[in-house]
Order: sequence, then C-alpha cells, then structure tokens
Amino acid sequence: MSLDWLYAPCVHADADIAESAHAHQLQLTKPPGSLGQLEAVAIQLASLQHTKHPAVDRVWISVFAADHGVAEENISAFPQVVTGEMVRNFASGGAAISVLARSLEATLDVVNLGTVNDPGEIPGVRRAIIAPSTANFCREAAMTPAQLEAALAAGAQSVRMAKAADTQLFIGGDMGIGNTTSAAALASALLDEPPSCLAGAGTGLNATGIQHKVSVLERALALHGTAKDALEQLRCVGGFEIAALTGAYLAAAQAGMPVLVDGFITTAAALVAVTIQPDVRPWLLFAHRSKEHGHARLLAAMDAAPLVDLGLRLGEASGAALAVPLLRLACALHNGMATFEQAGVSTA
Amino acid sequence: MSLDWLYAPCVHADADIAESAHAHQLQLTKPPGSLGQLEAVAIQLASLQHTKHPAVDRVWISVFAADHGVAEENISAFPQVVTGEMVRNFASGGAAISVLARSLEATLDVVNLGTVNDPGEIPGVRRAIIAPSTANFCREAAMTPAQLEAALAAGAQSVRMAKAADTQLFIGGDMGIGNTTSAAALASALLDEPPSCLAGAGTGLNATGIQHKVSVLERALALHGTAKDALEQLRCVGGFEIAALTGAYLAAAQAGMPVLVDGFITTAAALVAVTIQPDVRPWLLFAHRSKEHGHARLLAAMDAAPLVDLGLRLGEASGAALAVPLLRLACALHNGMATFEQAGVSTA
Repeated sequence: MSLDWLYAPCVHADADIAESAHAHQLQLTKPPGSLGQLEAVAIQLASLQHTKHPAVDRVWISVFAADHGVAEENISAFPQVVTGEMVRNFASGGAAISVLARSLEATLDVVNLGTVNDPGEIPGVRRAIIAPSTANFCREAAMTPAQLEAALAAGAQSVRMAKAADTQLFIGGDMGIGNTTSAAALASALLDEPPSCLAGAGTGLNATGIQHKVSVLERALALHGTAKDALEQLRCVGGFEIAALTGAYLAAAQAGMPVLVDGFITTAAALVAVTIQPDVRPWLLFAHRSKEHGHARLLAAMDAAPLVDLGLRLGEASGAALAVPLLRLACALHNGMATFEQAGVSTA
Repeated sequence: MSLDWLYAPCVHADADIAESAHAHQLQLTKPPGSLGQLEAVAIQLASLQHTKHPAVDRVWISVFAADHGVAEENISAFPQVVTGEMVRNFASGGAAISVLARSLEATLDVVNLGTVNDPGEIPGVRRAIIAPSTANFCREAAMTPAQLEAALAAGAQSVRMAKAADTQLFIGGDMGIGNTTSAAALASALLDEPPSCLAGAGTGLNATGIQHKVSVLERALALHGTAKDALEQLRCVGGFEIAALTGAYLAAAQAGMPVLVDGFITTAAALVAVTIQPDVRPWLLFAHRSKEHGHARLLAAMDAAPLVDLGLRLGEASGAALAVPLLRLACALHNGMATFEQAGVSTA
C-alpha cells in the first residue's frame, strides 16, 4: 500500500454552471434570496454535479465502526462493548441511522474496522478489520503506519462502491466508544487550541468526567506534540473510523461526488482531508451543528455553515441523514419552480 | 356571524402519554437526549395526537392570499398586482409552496380572500372573497368587524376541511403584497415595542425603504393606539390572510390538530391566537426562524424554539413545508428504533 493516492487531484466544480444556476435562481417566482441557504445549496450541487438539474435522490451512507485504545482511560459514559453491539444494531435495523436510511431510501454501508467485542460475520456488515482497537494514544501512537494506510483505504473503498452505485451524495458516519476523545485530540492538534476548548460530554459525561477527559487529552498531546503534519496527527491520536472518513472524503472529491458531513467526529476527519488537500473543501456540505463542544471550532476552521442546529450529539451519520430532505427539497425547488416569465408574475 | 366560537375550549394534550413517550425515548439505543430537539418534537406530537406512535404523514397546507390597503404607501419592493398573479402560480404548480407540497405529498389548499388583481375562478383555488383588499390602516381600520369575522371564519373552514381529510398536521401560509408591514404593525401593537424593532426588508426593501416602512408603521400605530385587545389590534392593522391564520390556529387547537407555524406573518397570527386563548400554545410547533427582522421577537414572546434557521423570508408556508421531513423523521425514529433491551446493547 501507499499513501500517494491521497494526493491525486480532485475534480473541479463547474464555475459556469454555478453562474447560470445563480441566474436561474433569480428568475424563479420568489423575492431574490428569499430561500436563503437552500438557494446556495442548490447552486453548489449544480456546480459539483455539472448539471442544470441537481439531485440527491441516490444517497449512500457509510458508517465506520471501530474501537479506541484510549477507552481504557475511562473517558466514556458507555462501556466499550457497545461498539460491537451497535454494529449488530445497525445491521438489524434498530439504530437511529438504520431507521433514517430506510426512511430516506438511502443505501446503508456498515463497515467494521475492528471492535474489541467482535460481532463476527453479520449480513449487512462489511468486515475490514484492522485490529480489535487502536492503541491507547496516551501511551503510544494510536495507529501504526500500516494501520493508518489500511483505514484510509477502507474509506476510499466505500466511495468506490458508492460511485459504482451511481451515488449522488456521499455521507460518512462514525461509531466507536471513545471517539469524541480521539476527535477532540485531533482537533486540538490540528487547530493548535487547548483540549479544554474542544472536549465535550460525548455520550453523556458530567462536568467531572469532562475534566478527566481534558486531563487525558493533555497527556496525549504532550506525548504527540511533535507530530509534523495532519496525517501524522491523525495516525497519533485518531481512530480507524476517523481515518476511514478522511480517506472517504479525499476519494469522494477525487471521484467528483458531493459529501454531506455529519457532526463532530466526521468534521474532524474532514479537516484532516482539507488540510491534506484544500481542493476537497468545495465538495463538502455541512449538515448540522452538533451539541458536542468542539464542533463549532472545527466548522469555523473550514468556514462551514451547517444547515441545521437541532442539539444533536449522536454520530452514526444521523445528523447528515436528517438534513438530506433539505437538500432534496432545495433541488426540487431549483428544478421545479416556475420563472417570473413562465408564470406571468410581475417583478420588483 | 359571531365571534363566540373563538372562545370554545381547546383539546388538551395527554400528559400521561407525554410521560411514557419520554420514558420510551430513554430506552432507545442512543445516549439519552442525543437526538436533541427531535426527541422533544416526537414527545409533543405523541401527546397531542394521544398516541404511542405519532405520525405526520397526512399534511394539510392552506395558503391564504389577500391584498393590503397599506400597499398604497409604497412599502413593498413588488407591485400589488403580484398577489393575484401568485394565486394563479400556486394553483398552476410553479410557486415554491406548490413544489414543496408536491414533494411532500401534502394537500395544498389555496384560499383567495380578496386580491385587487382578481384572478377569477381557477381550478385549485377556493374563493372566499371578502373585499379586493383591506383598507389602508394608515387612514382607518384595516377591516370592518364583519370583514374580520369573515376572515377568521375562512381560516376555521380550512381546518374543518383538513379535519375531514384526517389530517395529522396543519400548516398555514400567507401571500399578500404588504403583509410584512401589516404583521410588523400587529407585532408592534401586541408586544408594545417600537416599529423600528419589528420592521424588516420584506420582499427586498433597502435601508431607505425600511426607514420609510417604519414611518408608515408609526403613523398607523399612532392612529390605532387605543385598540383594546389583540382581536381589535388584528382588525385595525391586520390583513384578511392574517386573520384567517388566527382563526385557523384557534380552530386547529379546538379540533385537536397539531399546527406547524411558518414564518413572520404566521407567527404574528399565532400570537394573536395565543393571546385570545393561551391553550392554543401547546398545539403550535415552530418550523423556522425567518430572516425577517421582527420574527425573533414574536418567537420569544411565545417561548418558541423553531427547528431550522435557513435565512428564509418567502412566506407561502414554505419554511413550514421544509421542516415537515424533520417531523416525519422524528416520528420514524421514535416509532422505529430498537430499545437497548431489544437490541442487546449495554447501557451507560
């Protein structure tokens, strides 16, 4: 394996189509700009999809599950066994993202990258096991170079499958007890901000629990402070699922596939991808502002304005799934509304 | 006609079901509270619909169109002829709300309460003409008592039709050149706040236009400052469509039908309804925070937390329609997710 593929060029958005889509919006029977963010989203999708008629009917959701060595530092409200249990729940249809994917008629791709409690072969779960978990990044790097490569490649593999299914929108999700700690460490390293600004309640820590999480993060960052770039920071304090998401976002931009980013974990992965290749950024739409503490700072670093703010903090791609109908309706309005001329409506 | 019906009792939400719906949410396979506002919405709908399995599959959208005498004061970026033209556009399928209603498979009920440019009989438009427009409220009361009664009754009539169609969620919308001026006047009177805090750009005024709008509002409020209650304030500075929305919200609460409130105009109507009968309030869900200046203050007056904030300022019920999928997905999650016990997932 090699990491050369990470630097393969991204597809470019079509600036001419963006311009004509903007002009089209101004002709629709509504005050100019009155559909707010939905106008911008329709224009962005048109320009990314190189079409006058953007659409996100065919949605692909890959949820990457993996365990974290740092869980042994007691930084989660839930036991580590839950990661593997939830993989089973994703596949059997009872998890939030299972319900949402069904409702949206989206494809749900569950990828097991390695859980301490291994659910084994399950129909509907793709096994791409790297190890039972990452190493505890308070003691050593979370991943070996080979593990990082494998995780990045697993994300790219999901995008290849999505592309083969003629997907119009790619969504990545995460599951992994301890992964808000990993994402906070990564955010802290990427943004060069103290952990106290980036650590949140995760699955439900109280104030004391968050304070302990911050101290764990401070130890980790002291150990890995010399990591030289985003990729090395990802290897040192990331997780298999975070690396897979980073690989997926890079591969999506290279394949010309728009991405809807979910919450805190996925946005940390997105910032790694954008740091590696700034050309990834135009391919990212942002679904929601999570309640998890550090999300706002990651969003700000990419000048991202998410569509909704519903106090979500679940992960699993659930926030992105919830925003899909807004994108679909933005496209329906862009494609289906009458112009002033067609409708015989007077202009301002 | 009489106004006695306005004071008929509202149906009560079921507190026991609210409690068991809350307990159910805590058993679903996710950290408690991690679905944020969607949990609260599902619980509210369950309690309003008196069911363990809330649903908003059958949605009814009534758009009330009417002209405003105050338009002669040049307070809109668009000419008055547009109101009647848009009625035609609603019916022929080219308006934003037409596209949204189709996408959502919702019933679209277009009600013409009186437009200066009368589109006449059109298939798909219910004529309930009160007058070509209200009077200019800078000179006299916008409505006579009989006109107010007729407008309120027209709203109630839409709710009766919605009820007959076994509707699970009622949405009201507005169309009327000049109606942000009317809603701002009403908001100013109801909240006892100066017009400068409540007047916005409407369909697209610049700063000078807004300043002129404020001066028009100041004249109107000086003239009608003695209006003794919300109903009289509605008669003096409201519009036919705003009164119809007020009547609809009262009738919906009396019929036990949950309401999703749209933007600035509809929220002003909702505040009149809640002022007349505080028991209306539990029946109102709020869809979005409009870009129109005064909306936030109306929402605050009812302690309302809308679901989305997308910079919308179109009216027509468009913001409410856009939020419908969020309610549907909230219900799907509430009804379809596995519990910890069912899925064999460990708890915190």
